Amino acid sequence: MRLQISPEEHRGRMHRAWEKARQRGLDALVLFSPSQIFYLTGFAFIPTERPIALILVEGSPVLFVPRLEEEHASAEAVVDRVVAYPEYPSEEHPMLLLANVLREMGLARACIGSDGEGYPGGMGYTGPRLVEVLPEVKVLSARDLVEEMMKIKSPAEIELIRESARWAHLAHALLQEYTRPGVLESEVAMRASFEATLVMARALGPAYRPLSWGSSGASAGYRGQVGAQSAIPHALTTHARIRPGDVLVSEASATVGGYSCELERTMVVAPVREEHRRYFSLMVGAQETALEAIRPGRSCAEVDRAVRAYFEKHGLMPYWRHHTGHALGIGVHEAPFLDIGDETIMEPGMVFSVEPGIYIPGFAGFRHSDTIVVTESGFEMLTYYPRDLESLTIAG
Amino acid sequence: MRLQISPEEHRGRMHRAWEKARQRGLDALVLFSPSQIFYLTGFAFIPTERPIALILVEGSPVLFVPRLEEEHASAEAVVDRVVAYPEYPSEEHPMLLLANVLREMGLARACIGSDGEGYPGGMGYTGPRLVEVLPEVKVLSARDLVEEMMKIKSPAEIELIRESARWAHLAHALLQEYTRPGVLESEVAMRASFEATLVMARALGPAYRPLSWGSSGASAGYRGQVGAQSAIPHALTTHARIRPGDVLVSEASATVGGYSCELERTMVVAPVREEHRRYFSLMVGAQETALEAIRPGRSCAEVDRAVRAYFEKHGLMPYWRHHTGHALGIGVHEAPFLDIGDETIMEPGMVFSVEPGIYIPGFAGFRHSDTIVVTESGFEMLTYYPRDLESLTIAG
Repeated sequence: MRLQISPEEHRGRMHRAWEKARQRGLDALVLFSPSQIFYLTGFAFIPTERPIALILVEGSPVLFVPRLEEEHASAEAVVDRVVAYPEYPSEEHPMLLLANVLREMGLARACIGSDGEGYPGGMGYTGPRLVEVLPEVKVLSARDLVEEMMKIKSPAEIELIRESARWAHLAHALLQEYTRPGVLESEVAMRASFEATLVMARALGPAYRPLSWGSSGASAGYRGQVGAQSAIPHALTTHARIRPGDVLVSEASATVGGYSCELERTMVVAPVREEHRRYFSLMVGAQETALEAIRPGRSCAEVDRAVRAYFEKHGLMPYWRHHTGHALGIGVHEAPFLDIGDETIMEPGMVFSVEPGIYIPGFAGFRHSDTIVVTESGFEMLTYYPRDLESLTIAG
Repeated sequence: MRLQISPEEHRGRMHRAWEKARQRGLDALVLFSPSQIFYLTGFAFIPTERPIALILVEGSPVLFVPRLEEEHASAEAVVDRVVAYPEYPSEEHPMLLLANVLREMGLARACIGSDGEGYPGGMGYTGPRLVEVLPEVKVLSARDLVEEMMKIKSPAEIELIRESARWAHLAHALLQEYTRPGVLESEVAMRASFEATLVMARALGPAYRPLSWGSSGASAGYRGQVGAQSAIPHALTTHARIRPGDVLVSEASATVGGYSCELERTMVVAPVREEHRRYFSLMVGAQETALEAIRPGRSCAEVDRAVRAYFEKHGLMPYWRHHTGHALGIGVHEAPFLDIGDETIMEPGMVFSVEPGIYIPGFAGFRHSDTIVVTESGFEMLTYYPRDLESLTIAG
């Protein structure tokens, strides 16, 4: 069983990226984004103040890393050459050392495509742009080059997301089983995530590698969307106690070889009131509307327009808070978006969350999120947790 | 008991930031960094493809958020005015709408300081820079303005980090108690984190709010640094089974009101060999060397230089992988760095991790990390977990 992308597929991706770069008249591609570097080389790492860059040229790609990551990158990245610099900030700024590497590669006057103007940083990083350290270089924006490739998932990528859905389902099933009035949202979330991850690690065995910094297995929880706070789409955990009559909006996932799905459900703790039924059913209707609009050849915008029309028709616009969904895979959100402003044409292999939500301030929020893949004839659901209210009612 | 920064302190921070901006001749400060926005306003949020910006001007600050976050920001941010835009990408790009807001505020030809040239994005975001949407505006880099303020922690901030250390200690104690040969690293990590978080939530009660996206309580684990993999400073979890003779490098923390400490320990699963003792003792010596060099008025570089000299003297440079430490607080890594290249002068209130490490490829890694605060006379340890090998030996 293979639970990560093969070295052959990584080599193929780098080859394709290089071909695309050449077609644009670029002499090299210098990439700083951790997700693009992982997509191309298979090297998953913790982004810090220390720049990491992948240099794609004719022939062998070069990975530029801090000394801290040299052995790690050499073992994990599907590249022949890893060049390490001492540290950030150190006495010589890493960007100056990157410039030296590019100079030695004959790129001092090259036309370079990059996903940024320099290392984006965070964690206290500051530094010059590429053009500031190589003044004769021409840097063109090429963030979209690999991003376009990432939009269409390969069969191996879809299999990893499908595997993720299995364990997200388990974590969610345990979350639901343990949820009852009186418990802390954090308690059931951590217990479900803990148990699901252990089962996952044991069921998959040593072939299983999360290849992710933020997640090391399966997880499920409410992230603060409990009771009236469920109306805050991006609430944060507050260790709230679950009470009878609460609406809960869950989120579950699992990371497999660096890929993950998104599974979210609205659940109601009994007693279920008429108002719960009404908004729950409207939310399911909105999700059905979105799903019906998904097929290759249509635009992402059309899906969101169909959902907006549904909201208008049912007088729900006061409760509208966000677009219908987003692509995902390596990133928890990726482009394109199921959004009225995104005219990207859907193609087989694109993977999206489908999650229109209804949020009534002071009362509750209602949102299911499923992960689907666009197929030749329409779409396939990758998440398969029950979506009906009866299945999602918690005994009060 | 107050477990988060007070509204008064947030208002004071915004006032100071504005005063500093004015002294630089700026008409406004437009900030995009989630940590700077949290530092100033107290609004903790999940960064996504949707830009969020704080506009500081004479008078009332304005927070610019997506519709998704309007109620959340209104409830949490210490600002009088929240302006919401519909969505990203939507039919009008949020940066165009931000430009409209700035125009309405009379800033269309202003001199604006910013922590970026636009929204840094990630998660599939693309968009224009500030100068592209407001061509007559002059944008000056002012990332350092708030970053400088963040370097000196207030008494309230230090108290939150101190509180974090208590629960990191508990999580670590449980981690050590549960660790034994045969268990999965992930199992003991999740069990310790789960139990410590539950105790923490119950002990602190409703006053406790993590105010963080990534963490909702206390945590402790090995993140892949188990056995020979402990020699990889930034290894990722692989669900390895712990074996007799393994060296383990732990990491523990807890998030309290958005702040956290860093606590890391080297542990050895019996039988302890002479080689373990030797490197463990050298690592403790390196950390002592660093601590002895910390006092106000000295530079960060001096601390790292003292550690490098210690490495040289003991023939350890082949096993050197990273600088001595970094500031932390809201961010897990912040500037300044205990690094030969960082000449920042240490001042009372600065909080650093102190964590020189020794990494022997194929054998093991040795690193303790403690969080200290610089005081008037030297430093105070905020983490207080035992540091000696006897206390850190696991029965085989």
